[in-house]
Amino acid sequence: MEWIDVPSEGLTLRDIRRITKRDQAESEDIRKAVEAILADIEQRGDAAVREYTKRFDGVDLDSFLVSPEEIDDAVDIVGPDFMAILEEAAANIRAYHERQVEQTWIDTFRPGVRLGAKFTPIQRVGVYVPGGTAAYPSTVLMDTIPAHVAGVPSIAVFTPPAKDGSVNPYILAAAHVAGATEIYKVGGAQGIAAAAYGTESIPPVFKIVGPGNAYVAMAKRLVFGTVGIDMIAGPSEVGVLADHDANPVWVAADLLAQAEHDRRAAVFLVTPSAAFAGEVEAEVRRQLEELPRKDIAAESIEKHAKFFIVKDKDQAVDIMNLIAPEHLEIAFSDAETWAKKIVNAGAIFMGPYTTEPLGDYFAGPNHTLPTMGTAAFSSPLGVYDFVKRSSLLEYDKDAFTAVADKVMRFANVEGLQAHGLAVRRRIDE
Amino acid sequence: MEWIDVPSEGLTLRDIRRITKRDQAESEDIRKAVEAILADIEQRGDAAVREYTKRFDGVDLDSFLVSPEEIDDAVDIVGPDFMAILEEAAANIRAYHERQVEQTWIDTFRPGVRLGAKFTPIQRVGVYVPGGTAAYPSTVLMDTIPAHVAGVPSIAVFTPPAKDGSVNPYILAAAHVAGATEIYKVGGAQGIAAAAYGTESIPPVFKIVGPGNAYVAMAKRLVFGTVGIDMIAGPSEVGVLADHDANPVWVAADLLAQAEHDRRAAVFLVTPSAAFAGEVEAEVRRQLEELPRKDIAAESIEKHAKFFIVKDKDQAVDIMNLIAPEHLEIAFSDAETWAKKIVNAGAIFMGPYTTEPLGDYFAGPNHTLPTMGTAAFSSPLGVYDFVKRSSLLEYDKDAFTAVADKVMRFANVEGLQAHGLAVRRRIDE
Repeated sequence: MEWIDVPSEGLTLRDIRRITKRDQAESEDIRKAVEAILADIEQRGDAAVREYTKRFDGVDLDSFLVSPEEIDDAVDIVGPDFMAILEEAAANIRAYHERQVEQTWIDTFRPGVRLGAKFTPIQRVGVYVPGGTAAYPSTVLMDTIPAHVAGVPSIAVFTPPAKDGSVNPYILAAAHVAGATEIYKVGGAQGIAAAAYGTESIPPVFKIVGPGNAYVAMAKRLVFGTVGIDMIAGPSEVGVLADHDANPVWVAADLLAQAEHDRRAAVFLVTPSAAFAGEVEAEVRRQLEELPRKDIAAESIEKHAKFFIVKDKDQAVDIMNLIAPEHLEIAFSDAETWAKKIVNAGAIFMGPYTTEPLGDYFAGPNHTLPTMGTAAFSSPLGVYDFVKRSSLLEYDKDAFTAVADKVMRFANVEGLQAHGLAVRRRIDE
Repeated sequence: MEWIDVPSEGLTLRDIRRITKRDQAESEDIRKAVEAILADIEQRGDAAVREYTKRFDGVDLDSFLVSPEEIDDAVDIVGPDFMAILEEAAANIRAYHERQVEQTWIDTFRPGVRLGAKFTPIQRVGVYVPGGTAAYPSTVLMDTIPAHVAGVPSIAVFTPPAKDGSVNPYILAAAHVAGATEIYKVGGAQGIAAAAYGTESIPPVFKIVGPGNAYVAMAKRLVFGTVGIDMIAGPSEVGVLADHDANPVWVAADLLAQAEHDRRAAVFLVTPSAAFAGEVEAEVRRQLEELPRKDIAAESIEKHAKFFIVKDKDQAVDIMNLIAPEHLEIAFSDAETWAKKIVNAGAIFMGPYTTEPLGDYFAGPNHTLPTMGTAAFSSPLGVYDFVKRSSLLEYDKDAFTAVADKVMRFANVEGLQAHGLAVRRRIDE
């Protein structure tokens, strides 16, 4: 844990980047291993996927596709109580994301000039879902539902099988609820390769979203260009704006909820009250002892908890805007007024009862959010990530003739005479 | 030039990827050279920028910032006639892009539950503009105006100086018209590094847009994560849907307007009429002889012109959707009806007079468009590239209490007990 006494003139973006820097998990070794897997699967298709699945997941599969019976079984195992919770969460996520849907339009801008934008869902997407101990059905909902709301006709989930060839039932149940059209038992870099290039049994997708380990992240980075990707997610993080009006027990609990995710998770408290920061630190240390994931949370807190002591609430907002946290909790009273001054944050949780885990599971806004300061230039995952625009242009003969000379002048200035000729040949006709 | 007789059952995405494949310009040597420049500028700032500018651009600069007097001089050199054309093009671009502005909203979804989205412009962006022979004022307008319309308060242009320390006056004039707030005489990988990391005299930006050579593209790829980037643009391309209703002279001229851009530019004609394709080919060969940039256009046509002969217009649309061209001209009669069936294209030009150069310079929609098939998953540059969203969430005590149990159940299923405790401590209070 580090305390930073912010000087009265504030800090710069370069200061904040240095203070909040965490190592990237990438390495040259991982790059080479992943490059080899990608090339092999692009070349040899299903046979290569089968071999890697045997090697890395310890199971020899004849078919990668999850059957309807396996999904029915998963729903039974999950049970009606939790299925109802999944359905309710899915309904909340759907309701929020429906507000992001945009409509194709075309308008007459001038006589004879019609311009517009056509919105089309991406025709097929892949959702990567990690397996093993980190099986998060909430992430399946959050990554799949926006694609479904966008109208993507074909949504394929890729997830690693267990040694017995099964998939975690909570993942299957969540994928089913969220509207996935296929689920493949292919994980790791081989899953990303199969999605991007396609194989004999797996049609290729146009975009891949979802989190994964360092191999998955590297594979996504390397297939980017052939397909779209959502983002290379860093470890999770929360920023809290609070002073003595807030409850230090609750603030500490929220910091620990973030810290338990990952040894590299980061928590940022920005407060005008050193006394309040002291109370939160004491509470963090006390509550840590009660956590099953104490080891992970303790390492995150030790290395990546930063408490900034500032001169006033306005400076607190300035510092938080430089941090650009993935999650921001505003525990100042009158949270909404302070939210108006926030320019950089993935999601803003306002008021004492809007604890961050509400957003992870249930409220509706997406929990796949920009990390590591990237909220300064990027957005939560949304319907807009599964839809693309095509510009629409139509000039009639008169409108064309009216601007032809200007277009030719422009082409001439840029030294592109064939551009000018494409115009001139229509005039000279 | 290659003719492809499409079989009656059509082609697959993998077929199309193979047929339309062009080499990437990247190399391991370029990566290493650029990595060294980035590290050096991150470390040594202005001194390193000055050295690289001396080495690569042949000029020793004391200050990188373009002065108001230099801009005034540029406006004089460009002259009132072309300034008026620039202003008119800028007004058209502004009018179209204003349709992309979105408003912050927050609504009550259930009693005690308020959710919304806050739209904030990125606080500072860099626009890269290549120098030398490829000085395109249209690109300055297209890359800068959406940022300006988005409300980005600080827009810095980076462009390489000539040996005498000057910048092309058309670039300066266009940057001025478009609303750039600063222009720096720093190009190449050193320009991208200065923008991403900042130096003593150049504040860092949060996102970098704009085209460049292989060094610039590699630098953008490597700083991605520290800052946002628009896209790694490939060589330009056009697809044309046409049959005997279209004028082969005009179609040929449009193909050549694309081909003159770049030896790696690609043109795709998809037509149900082999006879029409033959007329277009003959016209292309005839018109080629008249072009000042004949060498470039001829190489592009020879290597990267693909004429697909299909069984009917519906199959033509299917093939074009697999190609996902950057620019698409629909020269079938009743273009708008056919446009409705297009799912993948950067910009759609409808009807015989809507030649692609209209869109390059003047009509208003952006000319920075997804290339190399990426229109299947990405969009034209727009205001949305300069704005990001923050989700807004607020639960009051009652709304929180009503869902607390469900959130704890979810946390428990995912094995994240500290998430559950963040909820429980608020209930137990």
